[in-house]
Amino acid sequence: MAGVSDAVVSYTLNGRAPVAPATAERVREAIRTLGYRPNHTARALKSGSSGAIALIAPRGEDPAFTNPFFTEFAATAEDLARRRGFAFYMASYALDRETVVDRLQEFADRQVDGALIIPDDRRDRRSVAAIDAVGVPWVQVDTVDPIPGASTVGADLYRGGVDATTHLADHGHRRIGYVGHVGDEPRHRAWQDTCRRLGLDPGPALPARFTREGGYAAASRMVRAGDLPPALFAASDLVALGVLRAFHEAGVAVPDDVALVSFDGSWEAEYSWPALTSVRQPIEEMADAALTQLLAADSADSSEPTDPPDAADGLEASDGLAQRHRRERHSVFPGRLVLRASCGTH
Amino acid sequence: MAGVSDAVVSYTLNGRAPVAPATAERVREAIRTLGYRPNHTARALKSGSSGAIALIAPRGEDPAFTNPFFTEFAATAEDLARRRGFAFYMASYALDRETVVDRLQEFADRQVDGALIIPDDRRDRRSVAAIDAVGVPWVQVDTVDPIPGASTVGADLYRGGVDATTHLADHGHRRIGYVGHVGDEPRHRAWQDTCRRLGLDPGPALPARFTREGGYAAASRMVRAGDLPPALFAASDLVALGVLRAFHEAGVAVPDDVALVSFDGSWEAEYSWPALTSVRQPIEEMADAALTQLLAADSADSSEPTDPPDAADGLEASDGLAQRHRRERHSVFPGRLVLRASCGTH
Repeated sequence: MAGVSDAVVSYTLNGRAPVAPATAERVREAIRTLGYRPNHTARALKSGSSGAIALIAPRGEDPAFTNPFFTEFAATAEDLARRRGFAFYMASYALDRETVVDRLQEFADRQVDGALIIPDDRRDRRSVAAIDAVGVPWVQVDTVDPIPGASTVGADLYRGGVDATTHLADHGHRRIGYVGHVGDEPRHRAWQDTCRRLGLDPGPALPARFTREGGYAAASRMVRAGDLPPALFAASDLVALGVLRAFHEAGVAVPDDVALVSFDGSWEAEYSWPALTSVRQPIEEMADAALTQLLAADSADSSEPTDPPDAADGLEASDGLAQRHRRERHSVFPGRLVLRASCGTH
Repeated sequence: MAGVSDAVVSYTLNGRAPVAPATAERVREAIRTLGYRPNHTARALKSGSSGAIALIAPRGEDPAFTNPFFTEFAATAEDLARRRGFAFYMASYALDRETVVDRLQEFADRQVDGALIIPDDRRDRRSVAAIDAVGVPWVQVDTVDPIPGASTVGADLYRGGVDATTHLADHGHRRIGYVGHVGDEPRHRAWQDTCRRLGLDPGPALPARFTREGGYAAASRMVRAGDLPPALFAASDLVALGVLRAFHEAGVAVPDDVALVSFDGSWEAEYSWPALTSVRQPIEEMADAALTQLLAADSADSSEPTDPPDAADGLEASDGLAQRHRRERHSVFPGRLVLRASCGTH
């Protein structure tokens, strides 16, 4: 509207470079007309001068950071955030939506300028709006599918499930079982699809919560039922650690009686017995992308005036939607199979 | 000085109850004379209305919360703090004193009203003063000995070491080794003293860092040296997990070849193979006492005018010293031996 670049608008507002008086007046006039308001916390986030980033993680039956994947993600994100000049804090929330918003509001009240959120489940439009209403830039991590209006980062769980199942098939196993969440879970679907594609006999699929106790209970049921497949894909390291304990107690040898491949690649998988072959989560890539998207989301949100929304999108022509539309982004990274002892000798 | 109770001073300042005008004037006069200034963040902490407590933990080679003891302590303290109406945040610091102060300052800038600090080593007077200078109430946890001028909480590591060593002796072992920090370490001294008291042959004492890798390296050296004692006390669960891995790889059976007792009682000790008999840290007791002392320290610090320091103490008669003197407190809690499989059959 002022006929100048974004940079000139910034210089007019922050005085970091000279702007001709007539140009500055045009910019100020456009700002008045458009009702543009710079967001100070967002600006602090972008400049990094006094910025702080929070990580908000869910807790279920176990505290959030008893999951080594969350802990490792938090530590990596903290490192990367501090290297970019930001303070970094962690807090957890219970398994309901209101509490995520509460935590974010608490952080907002304490000059925390952006948040990484680990979800309890998939966000719908309603919860995106509730989180947005706090007014702090946020990126949701550990997320499978894109979410309309949100900036998200995730691991390719489906591909990881394919890699794990295929690796067990490569060891010569013609029957492979599954332990973990079932139904609308990419690792479960990947196991099913891979068994079908390779003409394998899908072994039992045992539903298990993503905890040590969940894996222990599921494998104990498997032992009692007397239906042990020669190979098993456990959808998380915690589940696999529970499976190992149940098998040890029952005298089932891993990998000789049952070959086992897991998912997460955490340090606990390295120090279990036997050490777990596991699809390593792309933790570094996810943490780096989440921070990059957080800073980009901020920039799109409020540090520069936004373009008018494109009418062809069919979106309501409000500033909020235009901002959300611009920052919407989903990054997915593949895991990497780490070979150890639980799948058999190489 | 005003000849009134602490409560009347509080009422004069906060207006929560009526105070006779002449009395209020005496109080205000005394405040002017003594230079007393109420501390607003401390008051917020005491009232709990908008309080937040931070946990600051050290990181060495590993991220802070890769240590399950730290993680479990953090989760328990978070629960207890939230139950008392406080927000709770975690951050870590590198292994140097300046950074503890930096972290605390960052939290102070963000309206965090008190901090629990897990130390990297024992605090001396100089570092107590540096942390005090930030002006935020703090309590140091995971601390063995009292520290002049500080409020501290710890586990009775010495007694835990005695219990662990005695338990191995009760299994009939006449030679018991040790893996962990050596020298000025209560668990090491407890092992030495108990072996001497019971007339046992102290097995090798292998120095190890308190990490999985440290335990693995130490036990691998033990295996290579061919000097395996029939019983071994590992001074932390992480060390014991590394020991287990080295023994598994070398075909050394636990507990049949070497009986093992550990220290911490974390969830990793429950899901290792074999499950570790371990002295459980008094996590709930420590977290509760730390929060209680944090609130008490705050109250002594600034919510009420302090008594003049007692001249008999030989302390400089300054307000700062008087406050510090009053809040100085050290609480120690015993651990509890949790019997599992690694020490032998019961």
